[in-house]
Order: sequence, then structure tokens, then C-alpha cells
Amino acid sequence: MSYSPLLMRLIDALRCMPGVGRKSAQRIAFHLLERDRSGADDLSKALAEAVLGIGHCKQCRMLTENDACNICADNGRNDKLLCAVESPADVMAVEDATGYRGIYFVLMGHLSPLDGIGPEELGMALLEDRLRKGNVEELIIATNPTVEGDATAHYLAELAQKHSVQASRIAHGVPLGGELEYVDGGTLSHAFFGRRAID
Amino acid sequence: MSYSPLLMRLIDALRCMPGVGRKSAQRIAFHLLERDRSGADDLSKALAEAVLGIGHCKQCRMLTENDACNICADNGRNDKLLCAVESPADVMAVEDATGYRGIYFVLMGHLSPLDGIGPEELGMALLEDRLRKGNVEELIIATNPTVEGDATAHYLAELAQKHSVQASRIAHGVPLGGELEYVDGGTLSHAFFGRRAID
Repeated sequence: MSYSPLLMRLIDALRCMPGVGRKSAQRIAFHLLERDRSGADDLSKALAEAVLGIGHCKQCRMLTENDACNICADNGRNDKLLCAVESPADVMAVEDATGYRGIYFVLMGHLSPLDGIGPEELGMALLEDRLRKGNVEELIIATNPTVEGDATAHYLAELAQKHSVQASRIAHGVPLGGELEYVDGGTLSHAFFGRRAID
Repeated sequence: MSYSPLLMRLIDALRCMPGVGRKSAQRIAFHLLERDRSGADDLSKALAEAVLGIGHCKQCRMLTENDACNICADNGRNDKLLCAVESPADVMAVEDATGYRGIYFVLMGHLSPLDGIGPEELGMALLEDRLRKGNVEELIIATNPTVEGDATAHYLAELAQKHSVQASRIAHGVPLGGELEYVDGGTLSHAFFGRRAID
């Protein structure tokens, strides 16, 4: 016994999403068909238009349907500061929290040779072009503090050095509001050895 | 700062799925656009076709694109036994596990007045028609052992009684392979008071 072909197809198709297995896909399919058909319809159209329309910003690889993303198209940004991040969500996080007025480069991932993601997949050639042009004075590396993020940061730092661009990495340590007692050992050790003199 | 309009729309649309909030929707959107555009395309088409094509089985309310679902269309099933379940997934679970050869009635939910789900939304009129016709000899109630499922079971049992149909409920107790020590109190109490004589 199995579901009808169309329902089976929907359940299978839903599994293309990360974190969605067979059971979740069933639950989503039943919910959409039973309680939210207009939502399903909107989603179908939004997906089709996004797949067709959304590409990468030609300058920073941000996902956008235009040639340049909002930030790259903004003449008021300081293009001497370039911040490299792993994902579009990181751009939003930095924008919302920091008041940074430079520009970005979105890697769309991190170096992960086992998954077949090397410098090429991360658009490193485009970044190198950018560094070679000589406009950028500082490359701020804001990859995640994970093994892959660290490897990517190392690669980026070498790239910057090669083109005589100052590289820096955002600070890692005890988060504000965090308590030493509950912070994991790696973070505490990092914070300890990265201590700064108080003037 | 925000994402481009098309990307925003996709992220919003993804939130129609149960359990998907803003962060998950972002993660799914980036994954689909970056790593699985053909999957997103398939999903878009599957959703559109499902919304257009899939309705309910006229006899048992199962989700299907045909007038009758596979089970109702099967002449080999015993239509004297009717099993009421909450969702299409429950039909599959019973089919896979039990060798039951009767037919089903899929409520597509449970009584939940606070969510506006009453007897009407669960197709009780259709079920009552079925019981009134006099073909059904036993209504096997297989709603979930939750508060709402119990209330629904109670309602169904009264409906069966009204039409002089024998009602039964599937047994609840300690699951096979479970250990008394780790079973929750409610289940154990249920199993204890529902004990059966050994012949």
C-alpha cells in the first residue's frame, strides 16, 4: 500500500529541503493539502520565480535577482573595507548588529574538500580579482569559528597577503552576557590566549 | 537592510510549512538556491500539481487525486470493518503493520474546538451516512491516545452506538520491547487497569 502517485511525488519532492526526512515530508504535505492550500500555491510560485530569477551579485556573490545586490549598488559604502562571510544570513547579521559601512564578499559556504567544495566553488577567483585591483585596504574575515571556517579563514588570509592587503579576523571569545563557568573550554581557551592589554 | 524582494518572498512563502520559522526558512532558501535548484524546481511543480489535483476520497476522505482511494477502490476489502484514524499516515502505519483487510475513514485531524475543528471539519456527517447505511458491523477507533484523540474517540463511539454499530478501540498499554521501569505513569496505569485474563 502506498499513497496516490501525486501525493507520493509531493512527499518525495519535499525531501529536497535540508533537515526534512520522510516523516517530516509527510507531515508537511498533509498540513499543506489539508489546512493551507493557498500557502502551498504561493510557495510553488515563489519557488518557481526564485529559481528562474535569483542569481548572484556579480561583485559579491550575494543572492539577488539584480546584477548587483543592494549593498554593492549603494554608492555610500566604503569599498576599501571588504568583509568575507559564509552566507547571506551572515551579511544580515553583521548589517543589523554592527553599523559596518564597508562592502561584503559572500563565499556561499566554506572550504570542505570532502563535500567537493574547494576555492573554485567559493568564488575565490572573483575575490582575488577584487584584491588585485588594489582598491581594498582591509579584508575582514568573518567566517564561522568552526574547523572548516578556520581553514577558509586561513586560505583567505594567505590570499590577502599575496596581494598586500591587510587581513583581520573578527574576535572570538566569551560572548557578552555569558558566564565563564558555562562557556565551553575551547572558547575560554581562545579568549584567554587572545587577551588584550587594558590601556 | 534586507534581502532582495524575490528572496524575501521565497523566505516568507517557506514559512507556510509547519515547524518552519524565519531562520529555518532562510536556511532552506539558501540551500535550495545554492545547492539544489533542480530540487526546488521539482518541488514547485509537485506543489502546484498537488494543490490542483489532490482532493479527498469520496468515501473515506483519504488524500487522493482520484474519486476513490486505492483502498476504497479495492473490491477485495471487507467493508463490514471500518477503522477510523486521524491522518493518512495512520492508514499507512496500520496497513504496514497489521494485515487488516477492512476499510478506513480518515478524519484528517481530531476534535479541537479551540482551533475551530469540530465534527463538521472531520467529515462526521459522511461517516454517519456510512454507519446509517447498515453495512458496517464494527467501527474500530484508532485515534491517538491524546486528550483530543480520546475526545474524538468518545464522540465516534457515541455515533456508532446511535446507529447500533459495535465500536471498539485499539488497545493502549506497554509497547512491545518497552520496559516497565521506563514507561510513563499514564501508560502503565492504563495497561494495569486494562489487564486481560489469561485463559
